[in-house]
Amino acid sequence: VTRSVTGHGARTQRRSSGGSTGIESGTARIAVDLLGGDDAPAVVVDGALHACGVDPDLHLLLVGPESVAHEVITMLAAGDRARVRVRAVGHRVTMSEPPVRARHPDATVHAAVAALVEGQADAVVSAGASGATVTAAVLGLGRIPGVRRPALAATLPGASGPVVLLDVGATIDSKAVELAHNAVLGAAYAQVRHGVGAPRVGLLSIGAESGKGDRVRRAADIAIAAQRLPEGARYIGLVEGHDVSLGSRVDVVVTDGFTGNVLLKGVEGAYVRAGTQISASLAPRGAVLLGVPGTVVVCHGAATGADLASGIALAASLHRTATVARLSALATHLAEVMPT
Amino acid sequence: VTRSVTGHGARTQRRSSGGSTGIESGTARIAVDLLGGDDAPAVVVDGALHACGVDPDLHLLLVGPESVAHEVITMLAAGDRARVRVRAVGHRVTMSEPPVRARHPDATVHAAVAALVEGQADAVVSAGASGATVTAAVLGLGRIPGVRRPALAATLPGASGPVVLLDVGATIDSKAVELAHNAVLGAAYAQVRHGVGAPRVGLLSIGAESGKGDRVRRAADIAIAAQRLPEGARYIGLVEGHDVSLGSRVDVVVTDGFTGNVLLKGVEGAYVRAGTQISASLAPRGAVLLGVPGTVVVCHGAATGADLASGIALAASLHRTATVARLSALATHLAEVMPT
Repeated sequence: VTRSVTGHGARTQRRSSGGSTGIESGTARIAVDLLGGDDAPAVVVDGALHACGVDPDLHLLLVGPESVAHEVITMLAAGDRARVRVRAVGHRVTMSEPPVRARHPDATVHAAVAALVEGQADAVVSAGASGATVTAAVLGLGRIPGVRRPALAATLPGASGPVVLLDVGATIDSKAVELAHNAVLGAAYAQVRHGVGAPRVGLLSIGAESGKGDRVRRAADIAIAAQRLPEGARYIGLVEGHDVSLGSRVDVVVTDGFTGNVLLKGVEGAYVRAGTQISASLAPRGAVLLGVPGTVVVCHGAATGADLASGIALAASLHRTATVARLSALATHLAEVMPT
Repeated sequence: VTRSVTGHGARTQRRSSGGSTGIESGTARIAVDLLGGDDAPAVVVDGALHACGVDPDLHLLLVGPESVAHEVITMLAAGDRARVRVRAVGHRVTMSEPPVRARHPDATVHAAVAALVEGQADAVVSAGASGATVTAAVLGLGRIPGVRRPALAATLPGASGPVVLLDVGATIDSKAVELAHNAVLGAAYAQVRHGVGAPRVGLLSIGAESGKGDRVRRAADIAIAAQRLPEGARYIGLVEGHDVSLGSRVDVVVTDGFTGNVLLKGVEGAYVRAGTQISASLAPRGAVLLGVPGTVVVCHGAATGADLASGIALAASLHRTATVARLSALATHLAEVMPT
């Protein structure tokens, strides 16, 4: 694999601009959904405080009940309080509500996306129901031209470099054409975010030989092979579950949101089972919504305060490296193809 | 969870009859597919030799080229050679051939199943293409009454007991009714094989709340809830990927063969990524074909000699504990339902 050394990769940028903290410079204003997550608001409060503490250029827009937001503010040093603002809303989208419930104007995740649309924030972070966050993001931001359905991308640290897995839960019952779009989005993300110059893109299936898999996979194998990928990226065909955790064969693994979500959670569970330290070093903390013209990070419903802080840091980094704009530029050809 | 202490569990039987070797007593005649597996026949030869060495009551029927079989026999001590017989056949089903190719009378996996049908062997072990093995098994053995499609079950060592995951690759594009059958087969297997008295059965999805998942899952949730399970077993609803690796919530995880295969390989890859020792202790070595009236064990295509030896030991143990007959007895009610 050729990896970019021209400074386009986030890893390179972190090295050159972030010094020992690993944080890029520049103001980043992150809208945080105070009510998203199984253990919200406590874990979100913890995460917000931690994130503020390690990143002096981070500004937070706390979206949720005013009382919770003030809890965060009172726990900050007086000099840091100016970096935190509040957007007071009360309603929370619970895991058992249909995603469309996020359209309710009081829903915190809807209000967080609205802040992004209005230019009050640079990115959104939520550990709420991912379906609700995806719905709110698409309704508020739209999609980048040519993309039918957005995809959540998670990066796993493979043995020989990062592995981008998408979709991990945005789009269920995906069609072949949507998987082909995921191949473009994932390849662009690997290039822009991880500096992988010539990403190898694989389609997740149950064997490496062509023809293995269910109906959707057989159609997607053809659709991805016919899909124009960002320059340098290439489709290597079918890959398997272990390729996601090992990463020696592939840089971008394309799948539907159902399979990807099951696999990601299974791998994360395996790392927890293998030991806490392994889990902390190998399990991804947040997933990025690709295909919308804005920076949206989704954390696990079961996220801890540390996970939320990582998700906020990821959102800040994505904003500072202009990931979404650069990724969209690599995917413009999606808008040129025949509408399907 | 209540676990049986009446001696019905294989674990209990191993303890009481196997002594320090962990092997049940009694002759077990295992038909081994010499040409199954990416690294066959070398790994199969290794596995067969190792299995013979540790289990004095094990008899092997080596199915494949005579020259390979004789390689195994010449490496055995003179006193052990009487335990090994040969069924000479030449054809191998490769990973890229369609499963139906296994019908060819020369296919080693077909000949191994034929030996089982003819009473020359008590069980079959193959690391060849699992689709070919499943096809050969169904054609040769038929199915247990009421079962539409067989399922491959793998047992993962969860933090609080074994977790049975099925299907891990026998049936792709499963329908809801087939997933409901998997619930019965998996619950019966947990009871018979692992001595779990009241197995908790879950349907693998992308959230624990009812309604989460794709179309098949929404239909299967209803079908499993309406399905009569073996006495003592109960359906707990939707579970997630991490429940398979952790096992604190559930004993039997039901899914389709595509998702289960991807998840199992992903979890196995994660254990490899986490370290060799973890992988050796936590990754399952073989999967059992449930729903056919015979003992068939499928090992990974990438199986090592040690994996093959474990698969042979698993097959011997399943035979000695009459697992398939006892499991079938717990699933007789499947034949009573309206044909679908």
